[in-house]
Amino acid sequence: MTYSGDFDAAWLPSGAFRAVGSRRSLIRAADAGPLVETVYGELADACARFGGRVVRGGGEDAELVLELTDDDLGDEGFALTRRDGTTTVTASGGRGLLYGLFHVVRLGEDAFAGERAREEHRPAYASRMLDHWDNVAVHPVMGQVERGYAGGSLFWADGRARGDLGRVRAYGRLLAACGINAVAVNNVNVHATEARLLTDRIGEVAAIADVLRPYGIRTHLSVTFAAPMVLGGLPTADPLDEAVRGWWAEATRRVYEQIGDFGGYVVKADSEGQPGPFAYGRSHADGANTLAAALEPYGGTVHWRAFVYDHHQDWRDRSTDRARAAYDHFTPLDGEFAANAVLQVKHGPMDFQVREPVSPLLGAMPDTRLAVELQVTQEYTGQQRHACWLGPMWSEALRFRPDGEVSAGRLADGLVAVSNAGDDPFWTGHPLAQANLYAFGRLAWDPAADPRAVLGEWIALTHPGAEERLADGLHAVLDGSWSTYEKYTAPLGVGFMVQPGHHYGPSVDGYEYSPWGTYHFADRDGIGVDRTTATGTGYAGQYAKPWAEVYESPETCPDELLLFFHHVPYGHVLHSGKTVIQHIYDTHFEGVEEAEEARRVWAGLADLVEPARHARVAERFEEQLRSAREWRDQVNSYFLRKSGVPDERGRTIH
Amino acid sequence: MTYSGDFDAAWLPSGAFRAVGSRRSLIRAADAGPLVETVYGELADACARFGGRVVRGGGEDAELVLELTDDDLGDEGFALTRRDGTTTVTASGGRGLLYGLFHVVRLGEDAFAGERAREEHRPAYASRMLDHWDNVAVHPVMGQVERGYAGGSLFWADGRARGDLGRVRAYGRLLAACGINAVAVNNVNVHATEARLLTDRIGEVAAIADVLRPYGIRTHLSVTFAAPMVLGGLPTADPLDEAVRGWWAEATRRVYEQIGDFGGYVVKADSEGQPGPFAYGRSHADGANTLAAALEPYGGTVHWRAFVYDHHQDWRDRSTDRARAAYDHFTPLDGEFAANAVLQVKHGPMDFQVREPVSPLLGAMPDTRLAVELQVTQEYTGQQRHACWLGPMWSEALRFRPDGEVSAGRLADGLVAVSNAGDDPFWTGHPLAQANLYAFGRLAWDPAADPRAVLGEWIALTHPGAEERLADGLHAVLDGSWSTYEKYTAPLGVGFMVQPGHHYGPSVDGYEYSPWGTYHFADRDGIGVDRTTATGTGYAGQYAKPWAEVYESPETCPDELLLFFHHVPYGHVLHSGKTVIQHIYDTHFEGVEEAEEARRVWAGLADLVEPARHARVAERFEEQLRSAREWRDQVNSYFLRKSGVPDERGRTIH
Repeated sequence: MTYSGDFDAAWLPSGAFRAVGSRRSLIRAADAGPLVETVYGELADACARFGGRVVRGGGEDAELVLELTDDDLGDEGFALTRRDGTTTVTASGGRGLLYGLFHVVRLGEDAFAGERAREEHRPAYASRMLDHWDNVAVHPVMGQVERGYAGGSLFWADGRARGDLGRVRAYGRLLAACGINAVAVNNVNVHATEARLLTDRIGEVAAIADVLRPYGIRTHLSVTFAAPMVLGGLPTADPLDEAVRGWWAEATRRVYEQIGDFGGYVVKADSEGQPGPFAYGRSHADGANTLAAALEPYGGTVHWRAFVYDHHQDWRDRSTDRARAAYDHFTPLDGEFAANAVLQVKHGPMDFQVREPVSPLLGAMPDTRLAVELQVTQEYTGQQRHACWLGPMWSEALRFRPDGEVSAGRLADGLVAVSNAGDDPFWTGHPLAQANLYAFGRLAWDPAADPRAVLGEWIALTHPGAEERLADGLHAVLDGSWSTYEKYTAPLGVGFMVQPGHHYGPSVDGYEYSPWGTYHFADRDGIGVDRTTATGTGYAGQYAKPWAEVYESPETCPDELLLFFHHVPYGHVLHSGKTVIQHIYDTHFEGVEEAEEARRVWAGLADLVEPARHARVAERFEEQLRSAREWRDQVNSYFLRKSGVPDERGRTIH
Repeated sequence: MTYSGDFDAAWLPSGAFRAVGSRRSLIRAADAGPLVETVYGELADACARFGGRVVRGGGEDAELVLELTDDDLGDEGFALTRRDGTTTVTASGGRGLLYGLFHVVRLGEDAFAGERAREEHRPAYASRMLDHWDNVAVHPVMGQVERGYAGGSLFWADGRARGDLGRVRAYGRLLAACGINAVAVNNVNVHATEARLLTDRIGEVAAIADVLRPYGIRTHLSVTFAAPMVLGGLPTADPLDEAVRGWWAEATRRVYEQIGDFGGYVVKADSEGQPGPFAYGRSHADGANTLAAALEPYGGTVHWRAFVYDHHQDWRDRSTDRARAAYDHFTPLDGEFAANAVLQVKHGPMDFQVREPVSPLLGAMPDTRLAVELQVTQEYTGQQRHACWLGPMWSEALRFRPDGEVSAGRLADGLVAVSNAGDDPFWTGHPLAQANLYAFGRLAWDPAADPRAVLGEWIALTHPGAEERLADGLHAVLDGSWSTYEKYTAPLGVGFMVQPGHHYGPSVDGYEYSPWGTYHFADRDGIGVDRTTATGTGYAGQYAKPWAEVYESPETCPDELLLFFHHVPYGHVLHSGKTVIQHIYDTHFEGVEEAEEARRVWAGLADLVEPARHARVAERFEEQLRSAREWRDQVNSYFLRKSGVPDERGRTIH
């Protein structure tokens, strides 16, 4: 099963299977299901290429044994041991076996060397979900994929599910190889056509679910809260109305007739124009629980987004703070959500900016199931025209502990991300953005993993057998790329200095006088948002200690979040010893220099990378550099014109 | 022939015909053509409603005589006399007779009172053309009508010419009644579908031409300069290539086979991405002349737009000035254009801002036929959501004399405007925007007309028999509305403080760091563009004396254009005695107060206006007021934050 020609093999090129494909393997599974068939198929394909052999059941001598046992490793865990020349993967279920196989693939020859004491691997987050903001019908403003930078949708084209789902199958395989186990197949902004996927067009979803199932992936669906009205013709969508509850129950029953392992619903309610329970004077718990009740008999889950805020805010009103909104809306509801309702919380309080604090809602709802939502699609981080490796950003967020203690475990119960993949030949537009998709899966499995090591895994899998110079080059280009992007864009956590609408490229005042709650308040004297409890919006007080105190004072607030929490004069001195204005100038010059350096390093790798892939990345670096210079010059000019403070190094500012 | 029900009667309601329809009329025309039939039809319809009678040829006693004579009144002129109880209109051609009839309609009972010495009426501009920026196929960004604020296209729907052209016929009648004699039926940005109107889809244009012809209107077509390649499959569109010239000749021959009185082509070349002669190292005269040569045998004209500038300008480069572009591109070509080529020049050097100086190109090409292009569609003047009566603005521009002398005559040879009409029931979205369309036609006939009188005409025709209170109210609402709009938007001629893309609503820096050549250079000390010869871009020097001197110095430059020509400190004192910064604050507060007053006046007219019409305008005033406040607050906040200068009256600035 190769997927060459039409699209890139990403982190599963043929060569990644050399170590397992050149050996004798044995699969022992009494009760084989589709996942075991997938494991068998993967091994059989690899052996066909590399001369190994795979048998099922029998007692033959094998170098690799994959076995279903009664060990209590959970649904998805696996154990790995190596003794007497045999590497053994055991699991309690088919998913665990598949994840174990991909683990062995990742290890490569290392999996077959020496002895290896039993290691147990279990995912930190049971739910590791990708949300696709894909529209079935091309939306007049947002197109086929909202915030998509990788071509069309993998699932939908010409107003319906793709007839040929081969590419979806390949996608499922890639996702399984990095541990993702759930996919929501349509946009959380549910338009008219997409609403019908829940009812008369559920067959199209079922066809997709059939293709993803063999890779251990459950299919979820974004639905509109108004479905009982829009689809059911009811006069209300009031979640406490009996007819409404009945409608959801019946609609859900029909979904499960078609998709027995359907994952559940994703809902964006009372958010940016989507309908929700507020219209009926009901709470979001009321709303979520009605859907949860419909899903409960079948084991489904409702993912209910906490991204609720006033997007018609008056910019003149400095007392309202969008950053507060999710906490203010949802903490009073803690304990009221059903057991199969998951509150899906963006990792920051705003909207996927290059730098935000971790949302105070995480940690503030102990009696509610929470999922953290990340954005793999690079809406605010260069839109896959800029190289921006997000592993370090996510790692930092996922390691955040609301109580300030460095504790093991996880920040929430599930991890969700908006996918960056589309029908682009390289999947992600920018070939290096594949690393972000891979990293999301791997960090969802193990949020404590070192992002540099995860990047190393991705590099090795994607370029099997390549010289070390390639890995060094890719690390040089990617390791610091988030920091580079941060340097040449909005400074010190202030965010949102982007062109309105499409969000690509700089516009310092683009969201300054807007209804979106996104302000920097720069004037001729200073900049930043006072979110302190003492004199500002009080947002800092939504955190527990120590964070509430750390963020409250500009003396203790980390530099990189200073303007998120404080309005300060341009002459304010950072912990770095620089003034705010000089920091702005310096980082913007540095960011461009770093982008230039990345382009140079990439150019030097031409002999090591497949030409089409190299050319695509090289072309993106040109655009990144053009754009970075634009950012540098607009931001620096804006602040020079406003502050009147010259660059102390006398560089050109226009 | 009434057009009630589906759409508004605009300035031709039934009642406007009472005076002519209640009388005995006589038409004398030896050689009756379609125009005479139109005149007869209009009178017959009016008589059927109001009890009069119309006969042809015979020597009966009549109160109104319309007669074709051999007098030399030109193609379109007419003479009016009244003696012994008979009002007589004579003309040399059918168009003149039709214009004479509508003149009598405008006069109403006054046309039938007392005696009237012979008056001769001839249009100042022989060409009075409307350009429709209508797309045949809905454009993904610009929609059906580019910069259209009045619904869909009158001509095109569902990707082709409308089957029912009844509405187009009614439109032609309205245009004839205000003197317009040419219409270009598609967008100057010619996309793929629209390109084909020139060849295999010319039949659709012919159908429209057939409907407009009886109203004296010739049909023109926007074509792409690349047509020989796009449609003809030639390897080049080089205007000096023989095959290209042959292609244009043959294509044009076929057009005239279908439309014998076809008006000609409109071309936007080398402008905002449209193809043009620069690609072949040819001049715009070469380009225009090739099309002119193809049209010449049939009496057609090419309208060649002078809107050529670099839309990929680097905002860092202060030496390049978009305002200079048309003059710099075209004055070296004076005398090189064919006799049937018309250079179509926007009235200002930029792009239809609320305040611009008159383009220096007008007056600088004595050996070239020029047309002035106005924009009736309110792209930058409130998009037909704001009441903005443009008569005074156009009157001011059309009265401008490049040599500073107040001379009779006209600024150029033709007048063109971008239409504001669409398939909206009120034709123009905002019912009061009908007055702009009407005024364009009337000022094209007589640019010396008092705009207040033109507005009076429109009010009287549109509301026959209404109380004087209505006319007073409409004057109160409209007379000063351009000034009001100017007050609450971009100050002192600086322009372009709009939201990028759609151009509605404020964004002070929206076009500041853009590639479009549109900057205000505001910093903490001052604002404006230095376009002087002494220290700036030299644009002021493109004018002849006295203007070059008037504009060169801030001492003599008119206040309203100060920031167009000069960069001055916020404390610079205007001729009005106010500082620039205080002027900004004051006008923005005043503009909103004036919009509030207009809304109040309109509300008081509810008993005098048809309810649906009143409601539509009232709803627009709500939006205008909301938007005006937004303009006020954003502009004032921006400049307070930047300048640090408080409002001397202490009003609220956010």
